[in-house]
Amino acid sequence: MEPSFVYSLKLILFLIIITTPWFLLSLHGYNNNVDESSTYSTYIVHMDKSQFPNIFTTHHDWFEATIQSSKPSFHISNSNKRPSKKQLLYSYNHAMYGFSATLSSEELNSLRNSYGFISAYPDRTATMDTTHTFEFLSLDPSFGLWNASNLGEGVIVGVIDSGVWPESESFKDDGMEKKLPLKWKGTCEEGEEFNASMCNLKLIGARYFNKGLVAAKPNVTIKMNSPRDYDGHGTHTSSTVAGNYVHGANFFGYAKGVARGIAPRARVAIYKVSWEEGRQASDILAGMDQAIGDGVDVISASMGLDKVPLYEDSIAIASFAAMEKGIVVSSSAGNEGPKLGTLHNGIPWVINVAASSIDRTFGSLVLGNGETIIGWTLFAADAIVQDLQLVYDDTLSACNSSHMLSEVVAATSDGIIVCKASNSISVFDQIKLVTMTNVKGAVFISDDPELTEWGHLYSPSIVITSKDAKSVINYAQSNKNPKATINFQQTFLGIKPSPVAAHYSSRGPSPSFPWILKPDIMAPGTRVLAAYIPHKTTATIGTNVFLSSHYNIQSGTSMACPHVSAVAALLKAARPEWGVAAIKSAIMTTANFLDNTENLIRDNANPNEFASPLAIGAGEIDPNRALDPGLVYDATPQDYVNLLCGLNYSYDQILTITRSRSYDCSNPSLDLNYPSFIVFYSKESESVIHKFRRTVTNVGEGGATYRVKVREPMESMVTVLPNTLVFKDKNEKQSYEVHIMYVKKDNKSNNNVSFGDIVWVEDGGKHTVRSPIVVAPSGIV
Amino acid sequence: MEPSFVYSLKLILFLIIITTPWFLLSLHGYNNNVDESSTYSTYIVHMDKSQFPNIFTTHHDWFEATIQSSKPSFHISNSNKRPSKKQLLYSYNHAMYGFSATLSSEELNSLRNSYGFISAYPDRTATMDTTHTFEFLSLDPSFGLWNASNLGEGVIVGVIDSGVWPESESFKDDGMEKKLPLKWKGTCEEGEEFNASMCNLKLIGARYFNKGLVAAKPNVTIKMNSPRDYDGHGTHTSSTVAGNYVHGANFFGYAKGVARGIAPRARVAIYKVSWEEGRQASDILAGMDQAIGDGVDVISASMGLDKVPLYEDSIAIASFAAMEKGIVVSSSAGNEGPKLGTLHNGIPWVINVAASSIDRTFGSLVLGNGETIIGWTLFAADAIVQDLQLVYDDTLSACNSSHMLSEVVAATSDGIIVCKASNSISVFDQIKLVTMTNVKGAVFISDDPELTEWGHLYSPSIVITSKDAKSVINYAQSNKNPKATINFQQTFLGIKPSPVAAHYSSRGPSPSFPWILKPDIMAPGTRVLAAYIPHKTTATIGTNVFLSSHYNIQSGTSMACPHVSAVAALLKAARPEWGVAAIKSAIMTTANFLDNTENLIRDNANPNEFASPLAIGAGEIDPNRALDPGLVYDATPQDYVNLLCGLNYSYDQILTITRSRSYDCSNPSLDLNYPSFIVFYSKESESVIHKFRRTVTNVGEGGATYRVKVREPMESMVTVLPNTLVFKDKNEKQSYEVHIMYVKKDNKSNNNVSFGDIVWVEDGGKHTVRSPIVVAPSGIV
Repeated sequence: MEPSFVYSLKLILFLIIITTPWFLLSLHGYNNNVDESSTYSTYIVHMDKSQFPNIFTTHHDWFEATIQSSKPSFHISNSNKRPSKKQLLYSYNHAMYGFSATLSSEELNSLRNSYGFISAYPDRTATMDTTHTFEFLSLDPSFGLWNASNLGEGVIVGVIDSGVWPESESFKDDGMEKKLPLKWKGTCEEGEEFNASMCNLKLIGARYFNKGLVAAKPNVTIKMNSPRDYDGHGTHTSSTVAGNYVHGANFFGYAKGVARGIAPRARVAIYKVSWEEGRQASDILAGMDQAIGDGVDVISASMGLDKVPLYEDSIAIASFAAMEKGIVVSSSAGNEGPKLGTLHNGIPWVINVAASSIDRTFGSLVLGNGETIIGWTLFAADAIVQDLQLVYDDTLSACNSSHMLSEVVAATSDGIIVCKASNSISVFDQIKLVTMTNVKGAVFISDDPELTEWGHLYSPSIVITSKDAKSVINYAQSNKNPKATINFQQTFLGIKPSPVAAHYSSRGPSPSFPWILKPDIMAPGTRVLAAYIPHKTTATIGTNVFLSSHYNIQSGTSMACPHVSAVAALLKAARPEWGVAAIKSAIMTTANFLDNTENLIRDNANPNEFASPLAIGAGEIDPNRALDPGLVYDATPQDYVNLLCGLNYSYDQILTITRSRSYDCSNPSLDLNYPSFIVFYSKESESVIHKFRRTVTNVGEGGATYRVKVREPMESMVTVLPNTLVFKDKNEKQSYEVHIMYVKKDNKSNNNVSFGDIVWVEDGGKHTVRSPIVVAPSGIV
Repeated sequence: MEPSFVYSLKLILFLIIITTPWFLLSLHGYNNNVDESSTYSTYIVHMDKSQFPNIFTTHHDWFEATIQSSKPSFHISNSNKRPSKKQLLYSYNHAMYGFSATLSSEELNSLRNSYGFISAYPDRTATMDTTHTFEFLSLDPSFGLWNASNLGEGVIVGVIDSGVWPESESFKDDGMEKKLPLKWKGTCEEGEEFNASMCNLKLIGARYFNKGLVAAKPNVTIKMNSPRDYDGHGTHTSSTVAGNYVHGANFFGYAKGVARGIAPRARVAIYKVSWEEGRQASDILAGMDQAIGDGVDVISASMGLDKVPLYEDSIAIASFAAMEKGIVVSSSAGNEGPKLGTLHNGIPWVINVAASSIDRTFGSLVLGNGETIIGWTLFAADAIVQDLQLVYDDTLSACNSSHMLSEVVAATSDGIIVCKASNSISVFDQIKLVTMTNVKGAVFISDDPELTEWGHLYSPSIVITSKDAKSVINYAQSNKNPKATINFQQTFLGIKPSPVAAHYSSRGPSPSFPWILKPDIMAPGTRVLAAYIPHKTTATIGTNVFLSSHYNIQSGTSMACPHVSAVAALLKAARPEWGVAAIKSAIMTTANFLDNTENLIRDNANPNEFASPLAIGAGEIDPNRALDPGLVYDATPQDYVNLLCGLNYSYDQILTITRSRSYDCSNPSLDLNYPSFIVFYSKESESVIHKFRRTVTNVGEGGATYRVKVREPMESMVTVLPNTLVFKDKNEKQSYEVHIMYVKKDNKSNNNVSFGDIVWVEDGGKHTVRSPIVVAPSGIV
């Protein structure tokens, strides 16, 4: 953890950010693309729909007229200066009301005085953040959520990403229902290497958006100007959501099996907004705007905008409109962990998804004495490393110089070298050095979580833990002729403990809205197998052999997000009466907070510690339990508006998000009816008391009595009133209050994040409804 | 071609060999394992079965007694000197009558005087020499031979080889008839990592033989002491004969398809006689002896004994016994080509098989201008070598030093280097040098037939011909920014010309019996895909990554032989009334002597020339035509004996082969009723006339008239009398005479091998019965 003053500084900066008009903010480190040397930039402009002047036939006409009227006269008279520049990029109508346009600062200033103007801010760039996972999540066609949802039939998931490879086996439509949902208004947009016939009953829509990108980089040449995925990311995420059944899918022999999405019968519509050349908020907004207009049920967005207030966050803005229409938006927390407060998409009305490991690893080391050590390797070939001499030597095993490694090659004479990472050389550098030698096999000893989560091996080798290394070293040193075999293309399941919070997964609290605990939920994100684009390097052998694969194993919260999107889609199919907040609540309150050893979930960033809800939210998603949560914490659009009103936002900033003057700010409150709790204490305060009010709706069948069970965070006392909730009927609501009191015990402990939970347990034990609690120092944001 | 005096010397040596008693021969270059420093060696001893003394209960008892009585007394009194040495290795009863035993020279001398002794000679070592090929051979379940034979159902093929990998998909017994043939007496012998349950309805028997090997190398440790294949060769050949259907079989993405044997419903019995530690004639004899006893229909032996007279050639001896029982033996010509007279297994009663290419190649080079060049690569991964800079430079493209290659890497900067072989460096060395660099792609220009037949590539690269190279070089030199792509894991069919005689395929005449034209037939042997053992290196990436594959692409006459064995099995099923000679005749007289360009088949050893019958025998096997040959050249066991009698063999030497005194030598003749002709002329003679007599049997339905068509070899005149054969009925026989007269034209041409043929064409053209003619200088043997 970093010293607290850093966090404090950040909090101050954050408060500056959320209370400062946008036009000052580009000077304060915002990650936007305003090019000071250029007169023109792209802006996203929010307009007031209720002020639409009847003299215009279409919204587009109004927006065009607004832009033209804001042009200084010299521009009109010298129109040949920018003859081909199309100023209006997009008109938005669903996710927000307004447009994006390339404007000079003078034009923008002029525009700010236009009739109907609400707000404007610069376009910015976004960051991007299977298939055993369905088994890991206990999904089975014969019971639970898959059974109740008919595998997601009838539901449409819009994937906001880098496009799709339509020829992938995962997007075949065998077994899909012939008739498309009536509400579907989308299309299969043609473009480079993409024609309309590439859509089918599985991939029902595909569109692409890059006007914002072209405006940001006027000289850019778009490489694949169509919905076709040229990156792999979108093909991976969309097949994770709803890929069809593919027999024999594997990554160079690893993770072999029948691949399928988590909602294998759901439809997919692709909105390509992420390009090799960049990704712009205005394009994301256009993609989400279109998805809402097309009639999707769920939006999956494995990307986010960093360090941006809600009223300038395209995903926050578009997902508010989606939420109003009952469309669930699920998005990724980001891969900036394990530092606290690194999370993006920390949006109250969005499901924010953290990433976990699953119970799978690959490859083994077998010693000459018969001992088998399960390690980790994804070396991309079934290399023969069999019964070779095993070399462990205090000097050679440093593997820290090419000179030494040439000695290794000589010394091992067709053997396997054991490399032990040290302070003088990282395991990543050892891997690179060994790749440049001709050593036939290598065993890397490392506990670096980033290696097992992200790392690649380029020579026939395997990674083992320092714990497992003990017997390897002992065997190598105590035998005259030690031998070993490395087995590749092996897949092991049931690895313990799992899930574990991923090291890379961005941690809460949410910089843009810290008063709601984020992330919300965790899902498998590490080493997920899903469809990929051909011709892109997915593995390397040596230094010059680059390989591609139709299925790729990737890690990131980008891979976790589509798991949750798919579960939301399944719940949409199984529980059509539930709204966005109910679905999120069901997912959160039923999550697993224990791992497969029945202990609290651990944190890969510090395997000796349990993971806090700032890493894992409510825990690992448990789809079958989410189908039957017992109680849900519901919320209406007005509830979210009350939240916005509770902030220091201007009316226009609120209107930028809500788009409608019909919401009122008469009940401002930061206490949303949310299935989790977060309390901040300042360094100075001796004690803090926070009160929350919650209302739960009984979605179980018939009456039920729930009694509360509290696990108090350290240094905190939690009171729940009443401690029993009696429901006579289905859909009945009951409210309760929670008082969380933090009392400083000594000076040393006052920077801890501590956590606990409130669990409503039904009499008879059928349902348990759990909400995590975090008590954290305010400096961490 | 080598100077004639070399051949003359060889012929003299050969005549010495076949006329010299065996015990002198070990001094004359015979490839046997008599260890002069050791007192004991293994001998194969032929006994006279008709002299079996009734005082013994079993043959074994007699042989044991014979050995004991031949022991000098000091051995008996000092028996503890060799207490554990088992002298009797095998008793043979089917392939020959006798035994093999480890004996001192004194014991052997004593044995030679034993009652019933015929001959003895030292044990010796043998040399070892799919699956588009079924399509290439036009096999189709709906017509022709596959249809008529019901895919070989009911036939048993015994494969004499290195054992089998019983877990291979190719040996699953799905679809096999439940009831085994009644005649089957074989078993599934247990051993190391092999139990009886590993046999099934496809792999009906498996046995192993290594007593001869252990005797030859007393300190040897047998690595896999069971029928399990530890080499891959036997798994490859036996799956080529009769492998079951396997979907998706491929070699690292090449040659992908449904693999199957040429006789996919035949049964396989495995006789493992070839070991990693060596292979001995006594073990081969034991394997074939057992196969005959077990009741196989066909024996496939992809191995041979080099430079050995027929009466000491285990395969010749065993196959004579097989022939008597109607068992077809097919064996490989060897891989010592293209020198003439290098062939082994040139046995009159065996089908000797040469190897050809097929119409398939792998990989392509695509230039930036769109031109696609089909080349050859089996690089074992789908490497991405896409749109990279193409570098052709007079200096760099020599690719002849590591120094220069480091410049290449620098110069190409992630490009593709074109390497042009020259007198100063072979393409094989260029391939090795390039492998040691980090160059991302390479194009090797080479016409070396051995490269395309045998070669391997270890880095992402492709081989193209010098003819195709012209446009590549032209493109690279005439463009400012030349680019290219190499596509791996591609399979191209329909390559012309094909078949082509393989460079490596051993050439006739047969040193052990030059008066019958050998090889008999050619079959696909180059780059054949078939099942393999896992864990053995089948491909290498770079210098240190060794890969295995369940299917392997291999080249050799060893791969050609099982194609013919399988066709013989199919003919056995379709034409149960045909004997061994008729089957061979049907295969030979219907062979294709034209390639897929309708020209004479070419010779890869000299692509500008047509292949002589000394390379290809009667031509490429044509299974469907073999089903209906019209006429056959039949022969009885006595006919073969007449042949042996025509040689300078002693009675015991003949008896060693024939085993029976009931054959007589009253009609000695070197003119066997064989479907091919060979005439030798000596350097000195101005002209030679050879007369042959042949008898053909009408196996077509009903009467038929055949007229002869002759293509005369250069410098030769061929007369056939009569020139019309009229058959009134099926199975009627007609005889004719052939006079081949060689007349020297000038001194320069008198060392030529020339060839032609005699074709009997049926009126109406339904059947054509072709026999090749070779006229060759006697010096070539």
